[in-house]
Order: sequence, then C-alpha cells, then structure tokens
Amino acid sequence: MPHRTLGGSARPRSDSSERLTELVEALQRNAPTAPGVEAHLHSVITDAAAHPGRLVRARLVDLAARTHGLSASDAEHLACAVEFLHLASLLIDDLPCMDDATHRRGRPCAHRIHGEASTILAALAFINRAYALANLSFARQSAEIRVAAIACLDSCLGTAGLVGGQALDLRFAESPGTARDVSIVALRKTASLFWLAVLLPALPATPSARELRLLKALCIYWGLAYQASDDLADLIGATATTGKTPGRDRALSRPNLAVALGVPPTRQRVARLSALATKTIHSLIGGHPRWSYLTAFHEHVVPSPAGALVNAA
Amino acid sequence: MPHRTLGGSARPRSDSSERLTELVEALQRNAPTAPGVEAHLHSVITDAAAHPGRLVRARLVDLAARTHGLSASDAEHLACAVEFLHLASLLIDDLPCMDDATHRRGRPCAHRIHGEASTILAALAFINRAYALANLSFARQSAEIRVAAIACLDSCLGTAGLVGGQALDLRFAESPGTARDVSIVALRKTASLFWLAVLLPALPATPSARELRLLKALCIYWGLAYQASDDLADLIGATATTGKTPGRDRALSRPNLAVALGVPPTRQRVARLSALATKTIHSLIGGHPRWSYLTAFHEHVVPSPAGALVNAA
Repeated sequence: MPHRTLGGSARPRSDSSERLTELVEALQRNAPTAPGVEAHLHSVITDAAAHPGRLVRARLVDLAARTHGLSASDAEHLACAVEFLHLASLLIDDLPCMDDATHRRGRPCAHRIHGEASTILAALAFINRAYALANLSFARQSAEIRVAAIACLDSCLGTAGLVGGQALDLRFAESPGTARDVSIVALRKTASLFWLAVLLPALPATPSARELRLLKALCIYWGLAYQASDDLADLIGATATTGKTPGRDRALSRPNLAVALGVPPTRQRVARLSALATKTIHSLIGGHPRWSYLTAFHEHVVPSPAGALVNAA
Repeated sequence: MPHRTLGGSARPRSDSSERLTELVEALQRNAPTAPGVEAHLHSVITDAAAHPGRLVRARLVDLAARTHGLSASDAEHLACAVEFLHLASLLIDDLPCMDDATHRRGRPCAHRIHGEASTILAALAFINRAYALANLSFARQSAEIRVAAIACLDSCLGTAGLVGGQALDLRFAESPGTARDVSIVALRKTASLFWLAVLLPALPATPSARELRLLKALCIYWGLAYQASDDLADLIGATATTGKTPGRDRALSRPNLAVALGVPPTRQRVARLSALATKTIHSLIGGHPRWSYLTAFHEHVVPSPAGALVNAA
C-alpha cells in the first residue's frame, strides 16, 4: 500500500501550544469577513472566530494533515475549514427554530445579540469560506484524492450526515426515543463530523481498506462517546461548567442517551466506547506508526470518566 | 491567448427544449436527498427541485460550459450547482427573519408548510451538494483553473457577494435609501450570482483580460437590470403574475429602485442597462464568436419593457 513520505521541513512538531496559537490566529485571519461588511454580520463572524472553544477538530486535522504530508499552510487551511463547518453548525443549531439555546461557550448565543438573520448569514459565510479553504488545501493533490475529498464533504455534511442528523434530532419526539434512536442521531450528527476531521487530512496518505475500516470504526466510537458525554453534561451540568444552556434536551424532547438509559449506564457506555476507541487506535498504529497522532487526541475527544462533564463543544 | 477547442461530440446543440427537459431531470436526480431522509427535510428538497422556475442560470451555465469544452455531464453538474445555490438563497431569503414571504413561484413558501428548521436545513443541503457538483465538474481541469473557480465561488457567495448583499438588504432601512444604495445591494446580491453563472463555465476557456472585463461589465448590467425589473414587479405586480408576495419591499423598507426613483425612470433605466448589455455582448462576439451564446440569454435575463413584469425568479 503506497503512502507519501514527509518532506523534511514539513515534519510536524508535537501539538504544541505554539501551534495552537498559530491555529487561533489562522481562524481569525481566514474568517470570512472584511472591513465594509455589514456591521451585525461582521460582529457575528469575528465573535465566533475569536471564541473557538477547545479546537479539538482543528488541532486533529492540522496534525493529521502535516503527518500525512500536507504543507503547514495547507494543513492550516484544512483545519480552519473543518472548524468553520463546526462553527456554522453550532450557530445554526442554537437558533430559536432549532434548539432555541441562550448560551454557547459561556456567552449569549449570536442570535440573541445580533438577530437570527445575521446569524444564519454568518453560518453561510463560514460554510462558504470552509469550502474555499478545503479545496485550496487539496488543490495540488491528484484528481483521485480530490474526488475522494469531494465525496467525503458531501456525505459527511449533507442529508446523509450532519444536516440529515440535525433533521432527525429536531423530530426526535416523533421516534420511539430508545437508546438506539439516540445513537442513530449521534452517528449522523457527531460521528460524521469526526469522520470528516479524520478522513479528509488522511486522504493524501491513501489509506488501505483495512485502515479505512479502522478509522471509520474509531470515528463511530468517538462520535457516540463524545455525544454521550455531551448528553450527560446537558442533563446534569450547569452553564458555568459547560458554557451551554443545560437541560435543553429533556425540555425539547431531543435525543439524550442519559435520559434514555439513565446516568450510570451512560457513564459505563462512555467508558466502553472509550476502550474500543483506544483498541482501534492501537490496531492502526500496529499496522503503521503514521497513525500515532490519534493517541494524543483520544483524551481530547473522550474525556476520562471523572472529567466527563467538562465538554464545552 | 489560448483557448480550448471543442471536442467533436461535445459541440452544444441550441438551447433546445429537449436539453431543458434534461436539465429539469438532472436537478431532481442530483437533489441532495434519498429515501430515509427525515420526511419534512426530504419534502422541502424534492418540492424545491421539482419547481425550479425558469432556470435562466442553469441554462446559461449549461450552454456556456459545453461551448467552452466541458463534457455534457460536467456541464450538467455545474448547471445544477449554480441552480442549487440560487435555490438555497431563495429558501433563506423567504424566511420570517429575512423577507417573511408567503409565496414563491406561485406556491406557499417552504417554511410555511414544513417549518423554518427544515427549510434552513434544506438550504444547507442544497449548498453542500452544489459544492460537490461544482468541484466534480472541475475535477479534470488544471490546478490554475480550479483555483480560479474556488476564488470565484468564495467571492460571489460570501460576504463580498450574495451573503454580504443580503445582510445590507436586511438593514437597508438604516441607509439613506437612495438609488445608489439600492444599486449597491443589487450588485452584491444579484450581479454576483450572474457573475458566478457567467464566469465559472467560462474559466476552462481562459478568457483574456479584455474578455474578463467585458464579462464583468455584462454581469453588472444584467444584475442591475434584472433586479430593477424584480423591483418593478414587487411594486406593481400581483402574486398571480410574479408567483411571489408583492409589496414586500415597501412594507419591509427593503431596497427597491422603483420606490427610490419612481416607475417610469426605473423602466427607462432597465432599457438603458439592457442596451449596454447588448453592446457589451456585441463587443465580446466581435473579439471571438465563442461568446455568441450570450445573445440567447439576454432576453431571458432582461425582459423587454412590455414583459418587464413577468419575472418569476
């Protein structure tokens, strides 16, 4: 199975705090606004880019892309693209017609300050810029890799992924509401975005069929575990800890594993999923050490049981 | 200045009704939904794709792309992409927090039947699929052409284009409301989408600087004329003629040239812009006959004064 070797100067350093600072700056530099843009739209965009959360996805994409041979600049573009898509999904999810949330990342939601219209337009601007950045980062790759990236974006973000998952989420009250129903939504909404963040930067390495199967399994374990932790936080957390409006899932009849199963079984499930994810990463590294970077992210994605509440999206 | 010659079998036929039927079918085939997608989201997407209006942009993109050497399949993908972006912008513009429209294309707006959330998600699904289709249609082009396409999509759709124009549109009441202010919004909202529809399919022909200048001028004339006709329809039209909610611009203090200037001067301006567009098309064809297809679209874009009311978007 062929894979690209790293260029000498492009070998990634560790996921250092210096690189994190660079990513935070890149998010602001690449934000889709400029002087002269209407003031409310401009504010939503600059505020969102300036309060980017833990950047789990961006850091994963950046390190993965550099590991698999993309230049630091292309890796940065791809990391910003995935983070902007995540950001857009949060702006949209919080809208009154969706989750009607009041707080996000410890601050009032954008639509509560600048209105729904400016918030929707800001989300569209982030999505549009995300596509530009993702496509730019792949511009020098082969046609085969570029077509695979197009298919990945289409399936992860569209009705088969994020958008379809959000639609199921909103109509969850019409489903039987079992743990299985909760997981179907988590697979579409949460696992899809991890799959995007894991697969896109790995495409230049042309993973083998075995590697693709393991990466996909990892994203399912990560997605389900991450969402279950989020569900725990929604049920028993406080805004001060999570930065979000708590109790929204039960109030809105939205999918929540801790509501469906109870808190202790949900904690147990998170632990089981976490163990499966760790085992999958070991299988990947056993086949080739180029997947070692995944280890560093496991703790970011799946908090240890003691820290399961600290999960600001 | 180099340009590609047409492949034998790819030479476009006239913009026949047969091809229009193919495009209508392609829009439905490429619509971003499938069995199993949540029912309301599925309905908004299939309804929108099944009632595509006059397809001015899709027909222009399709004929232009085939003229400039894209395969019939790539041209179809690009035409669907531009039409889906237009469709998404209509779904978003009609929302209660934007224009709060009740009718579009002679039917109740999507959000009045399926709710705001499903409508927003459908728009996102159309945008996502549009990027997949546009990128696929360019997959075999050179890196230079692909990067130009990325830049075109970014500037036409983002805060420098459609999204930025919509933001100005919504806050128009805060501007002096002169004809110039109206035109600034029309340039961002309407001319941008024509520029997308004209430039994207022409990129494989690597237009000269002179051609690019003329094409840009044409899109400005077309955009301003099209929007002014739309403004006339909003002011003095009826839902039965336009398929849209009339009188929204005045009711919502939105930009409308006919409100700012009066009806007769607006009609005169449409006629003047139409003459400038025609002159520009002649200049392009004088330089190279490959731009002849633009003539056929002039009448679609800028209705003759007698027909200025018949302008269903």
